[in-house]
Amino acid sequence: MSQTHVQTTPSPMHQIRNAFLTGKSQRMIKNLAIVGATGAVGVEALQILPQKPLKIENLTLLASPKSAGKEIAFGAQTVTVKALTENSFAGIDYAIFSAGGDQSKKFAPIAVKAGCVVIDNSSAFRMDPDVPLVIPEINPDAARAHKGIIANPNCSTIIMNIPTWPLHQVNPIQRIVVSTYQAASGAGAAAMQELKSQSADILAGKAATPKVLPVQCAFNVFSHNTPIGKDGYNTEERKMIDETHKIFADTSIAITATCIRVPVLRAHSESINLTFTNPITPDQVREILKSAKGVTLVDDQQENIFPMPITASGNDDVLVGRIRQDVSQPDGRGIEMFISGDQLRKGAALNAIQILELLTS
Amino acid sequence: MSQTHVQTTPSPMHQIRNAFLTGKSQRMIKNLAIVGATGAVGVEALQILPQKPLKIENLTLLASPKSAGKEIAFGAQTVTVKALTENSFAGIDYAIFSAGGDQSKKFAPIAVKAGCVVIDNSSAFRMDPDVPLVIPEINPDAARAHKGIIANPNCSTIIMNIPTWPLHQVNPIQRIVVSTYQAASGAGAAAMQELKSQSADILAGKAATPKVLPVQCAFNVFSHNTPIGKDGYNTEERKMIDETHKIFADTSIAITATCIRVPVLRAHSESINLTFTNPITPDQVREILKSAKGVTLVDDQQENIFPMPITASGNDDVLVGRIRQDVSQPDGRGIEMFISGDQLRKGAALNAIQILELLTS
Repeated sequence: MSQTHVQTTPSPMHQIRNAFLTGKSQRMIKNLAIVGATGAVGVEALQILPQKPLKIENLTLLASPKSAGKEIAFGAQTVTVKALTENSFAGIDYAIFSAGGDQSKKFAPIAVKAGCVVIDNSSAFRMDPDVPLVIPEINPDAARAHKGIIANPNCSTIIMNIPTWPLHQVNPIQRIVVSTYQAASGAGAAAMQELKSQSADILAGKAATPKVLPVQCAFNVFSHNTPIGKDGYNTEERKMIDETHKIFADTSIAITATCIRVPVLRAHSESINLTFTNPITPDQVREILKSAKGVTLVDDQQENIFPMPITASGNDDVLVGRIRQDVSQPDGRGIEMFISGDQLRKGAALNAIQILELLTS
Repeated sequence: MSQTHVQTTPSPMHQIRNAFLTGKSQRMIKNLAIVGATGAVGVEALQILPQKPLKIENLTLLASPKSAGKEIAFGAQTVTVKALTENSFAGIDYAIFSAGGDQSKKFAPIAVKAGCVVIDNSSAFRMDPDVPLVIPEINPDAARAHKGIIANPNCSTIIMNIPTWPLHQVNPIQRIVVSTYQAASGAGAAAMQELKSQSADILAGKAATPKVLPVQCAFNVFSHNTPIGKDGYNTEERKMIDETHKIFADTSIAITATCIRVPVLRAHSESINLTFTNPITPDQVREILKSAKGVTLVDDQQENIFPMPITASGNDDVLVGRIRQDVSQPDGRGIEMFISGDQLRKGAALNAIQILELLTS
C-alpha cells in the first residue's frame, strides 16, 4: 500500500515554474549570507534557494572556524565556507542566521550595523517588541516594518499556526490544547545522526549512549529537553504559547502545549484540539483549509491515510488531517486535527526564505 | 546521565515478598489456561505469573495449531503448547484469553459452558452489559459480580485510567483531552519485530516494506490503524472514551482522544489534559498520586526526568510526570500531565493476572 499521495518538493513543477519566472519576475539579491551554512537548517536553505525565483549574485557562507574552508555546492557554483567574524557583514544585504541563539545575539546587531537585514532563525530576538516575528502567510506586513532584524518563529509554532490561522480568521479560536511529536532534526544535524547511530546500536544489542540529546532518543519518546519554568512548562512549550500570541497579534487565545520528542528524523507532528467562538463543522474546517496557503489536506478516513512525518518530509506544506468534531465539546465548538510539517523546511529554512522573498518583492 | 531512577520489575523485592507469602497467603489455582500463549501478551503473562503469590497446579498453554508442540519454560517446568479446540476447557478453572477478538468470540462462551472463568484481553465483550470491564485498582467489585467472562480493558484506557481515577475520586473530572504515543507491542509481537527489521532496513539505505502494520512504522508516527467511525474517531479512540465511561461507571465525563502510533517497542505514553469540577493545584495532584495504587511519580522538573517508555518498560506501575497547572484554564481547574505505562504489563497481561488474583483472594 502506497502512502505517498502527497507531492514531495523539489518537483519538476517547481523547475518549470521557476523557468517561467526567469526574467522580469525573478527577484535579484545582490549579496546574501547564510550564517550556520553547514548546520541542518543552513544545508536545507541551500537546497531550497535554487528552487525559488531568486537570483543571488553573491552568496556568502559563514560558519564556525572549524567548518571554514569546506566547499559547498550551490546550484552550478561551488562556494567556500568562511569563518564567521565581526567583519563578515560588510556589503551583505541580507543574512539568514541559523547558528544558534548565542551567535545571533552576538553577530546579528553587528550585521545590522553593517547595513544588513537579518532573518534570524534562533529564539534570541523573537519576543523582542522591536523585532517582528513572521510567518509570511499570516503577518507579512510585520516583516515589512522591520528595524533590521526579523525573527523566524519556532518550528512547532510555525507548523501549528499555518492551519489554525485561516480558521481563526473565520471563527476566532478561544483555546488550543496541543501535544507535539517532534523530530530529531529540531535538535540539529548531530541529533539526527545520533538517532540513526543509537538505533543501529540498539538493534545490534548494544547500549544506547546519549551524547547530543540528554536521554536515549532511539525507540523512545521523551519530554522536550528545554529548561522547565516555574509554571512547569518547558521553553519549547512556552515558545508555542507566547509566539502564537505575538504572530496572531492576539493574546486572548488560551493555549496549552506539551512538547515531546519522538524517534523521527525530520518532520514534526502535532495533535491539536481547538475550541472556537462559534459552532463549526469538520466540513467547514476542510472547506477553509482547502484554499489556505501552505496547507495540504491529507484526510482520507476511508483508506486511513493521514499526515505522517515521512510524507511531510521534503514537503513545503503542512499536512492536515484527522479533522473531526470534538465529541467532548457537545456545543459543536470543538475540532480535533492531526498535522505534520517538515521541521527543516516550513519549520525553519523555508519560512526564512519566504521572509526573504517577501522583503525583496 | 542516568535516567533509570525507576525500579524495573521483576525485582529482588518481588522475590523476597513472594518467599514471605509462600504458605498460607499463597493462593492456589488448580487449573489455569493461557489462550494465545505464544503471542506478545501470552509470553508476558508467563513471565509475570511466577512473580505473583499464586500457586498454579496445572498450567495449560493453548495457541493456534501452528504453535502446537512448542515447549515453553514456566518457572522450573516446561509446558508443551496445545492447539486450541472446543474441547480445550474441560476441567479448566480460569483462562486468560489473548488470542484476538475472533478467537475470544468463538471460544470464551465454550470455556464458560465448561465451567471456566474467562479473563478476556480482547475487545470482544468489553462493552457487553453482562460482562464487567475491570481494572482491579478501580472497580474490583465489578469483577466479583461476573457471569463467567471478565473483560480486560484496552491498553491505552488502562494506562490513562490508573492516574486519573484517584484524582476523579477527590475532585470529579469533567473533561479529558488525551493524545497517545503508542508502542508497536500494541499490534503484537510481529509488529515489534517489524519495527526492528524496518529500522535496520532504513539504516542500511533500503526501502521499508510494511507487512504487519499498514504503513512504515520505523522513524515515523501515524494515526492508529483501526477503522474510522462516522464521527471521525477511530476504534482505538472510541475504546478510550467508551471503556473509561464503563470502568468509572460515569458517562458524564467528556472525553476526546487522538491515538497515534510511534516507533517505540513496548510502552505507551499519553499526554493528558484534564478539567476538574473544582480548582486543583499540581501539588494536590502529586499528593493524591503519591499514595495511589499502580502509580509511580517521575516528575523531576529540575533534572528534566519524566516518564519515558524505556523506563516504563518492565515496570508494573504507570509513570506520571509533567504535572502542571494548565495555563489555558485560568480558573485553576486544569491540569496537564504526561504518563508512560508498559502496554504488555499493566496495559494487558499484568491487569489480567491482577483480575485473576482478585478472583482467587
